[in-house]
Amino acid sequence: MDTELAVIGAGAAGYTAAIYAGRAGIDAIVFDTGMGGGLSTWAPRIENYPGFPDISGVDLMDRMKEHAEPYADFHYNEEVTAIEPDGDGFKVTTAKNTYTAGAIIIATGTTPRQLDVPGENKLRGRGVSYCATCDGSFFTDKKVAVVGGGNSAVNEAIYLHGLGCNVTLIHRRDQLRAEEALAQEVDKKDIPVIWNTVVEEIRGDPVVETLALKNRKTGETTQQAFDGVFISVGETPQSSLATSLGIETDSHGYIQTDERQRTTVNGVYAAGDVTGDIRQIITACAEGATAALTSMHTLGKSYPF
Amino acid sequence: MDTELAVIGAGAAGYTAAIYAGRAGIDAIVFDTGMGGGLSTWAPRIENYPGFPDISGVDLMDRMKEHAEPYADFHYNEEVTAIEPDGDGFKVTTAKNTYTAGAIIIATGTTPRQLDVPGENKLRGRGVSYCATCDGSFFTDKKVAVVGGGNSAVNEAIYLHGLGCNVTLIHRRDQLRAEEALAQEVDKKDIPVIWNTVVEEIRGDPVVETLALKNRKTGETTQQAFDGVFISVGETPQSSLATSLGIETDSHGYIQTDERQRTTVNGVYAAGDVTGDIRQIITACAEGATAALTSMHTLGKSYPF
Repeated sequence: MDTELAVIGAGAAGYTAAIYAGRAGIDAIVFDTGMGGGLSTWAPRIENYPGFPDISGVDLMDRMKEHAEPYADFHYNEEVTAIEPDGDGFKVTTAKNTYTAGAIIIATGTTPRQLDVPGENKLRGRGVSYCATCDGSFFTDKKVAVVGGGNSAVNEAIYLHGLGCNVTLIHRRDQLRAEEALAQEVDKKDIPVIWNTVVEEIRGDPVVETLALKNRKTGETTQQAFDGVFISVGETPQSSLATSLGIETDSHGYIQTDERQRTTVNGVYAAGDVTGDIRQIITACAEGATAALTSMHTLGKSYPF
Repeated sequence: MDTELAVIGAGAAGYTAAIYAGRAGIDAIVFDTGMGGGLSTWAPRIENYPGFPDISGVDLMDRMKEHAEPYADFHYNEEVTAIEPDGDGFKVTTAKNTYTAGAIIIATGTTPRQLDVPGENKLRGRGVSYCATCDGSFFTDKKVAVVGGGNSAVNEAIYLHGLGCNVTLIHRRDQLRAEEALAQEVDKKDIPVIWNTVVEEIRGDPVVETLALKNRKTGETTQQAFDGVFISVGETPQSSLATSLGIETDSHGYIQTDERQRTTVNGVYAAGDVTGDIRQIITACAEGATAALTSMHTLGKSYPF
């Protein structure tokens, strides 16, 4: 075997899996399509990871990265394109090479869902964004919409407000799904919310100029001028490597695991957002730790738990 | 109700439950028998909590405490002595007062069973440890004893051996209680076992230097040099409040929960070491977060997950 354990994805779950694997004497390679950090790096502020009352996603993930790197071999910018059973283990194919591994942890996370409306793809990077932390600073003093009503959407709206953007939330329902503390911030900062409303089209040339909005209650359609639109309407689990191995997912595509992060295929574990449910950084980390420790069974190592 | 949620125990699980409860708009009281921090504060160094490559247990728990305190009402030095059903919720009796609460999270942890021998308390954290996973890596290339003969002790001995420690098992009986597969590992790895022997005293200044051992068959007493001693003679989950409510525990007394930390009694959740299994700080935190969020169901609050 080239490695005992292959971890696919270097977000919160992958980093923690690396820490626990290394400390348990497991030889591991961690693959990431980019430079690591996962979707957490898109979060402008994180206030619920215990030990850090207020930290940016980029800073927290940088700390985890620094923490994890001594414990495993990190292959950044190396996308895993296929995983196949191979003898007692697995063959992992990447864009650069192939590797054999005794066990696998899939920690590939999710990607932001698109609205799938006209103009969205054409104007991406020209006013259409999926990441306030990445792009917010281009919109100071400008008029921006945040589409969505969950924690991420509300966090982004508050962040953009703090950057001096003129922010409006657009939400398809009549109340926010975000946690109470965040919903209250929206009130306190007088961030307007357009309720019961969906975006039907994003217009502009060469950059975003207007949104075509439809009120779901009245059916009324209006045009409103915006310089930018931040889309935060949920995520799509990156579970195609899992499904190609025959691993079971739920109806939304999230990988199903037991309480020890075992998937339905022996020797393959999953951790973090790709497994669905609560999808917090703290739960992703716990799942990464659990997966790494439980993989000791697969790897025939003595196991203290 | 005096409070929506009563959290029993201010360790890693209780602190995280407080953070998540507060941010979800849940009014919570957290009770602790002491000043909080739980068993984590016993770990001299913690290297596996993501984001902190090397921190003392006391420092990490102080950070979590500071993080959690704005989110709930903390009642330190107030032991909960009874929990009873009361109308739609529960009556929580403490050494100081009684409170009504809509939901309960039991996060009371475990206490390691001690040997109760001279030197044990004085040298705790100075060579005396109750957790090989936590502290083992500090003893690579050093001579350590593991006291005990059950699965945990043998697992810890094998784990320490794997880390490159010079390990000796000390067991009071003439054969291990651990399962056969584990006992065979001890043979295979040539880990010496001192049979029929108990530790009578732990000596050293300022760190562990020798153990005073007594052979229970011959009555002979000897001194042996060790750099560390891992005491693994069992842990006692603090689950008496749960059992008095009729909550199911496993045969060792750990509270049984589902994946959302629900116990077998509606409205009562459990999180952290008292639920058994992997018992790491990161998993305790995740369970605390999960319990707090899931308690929103019990409390009739809108629930974003």
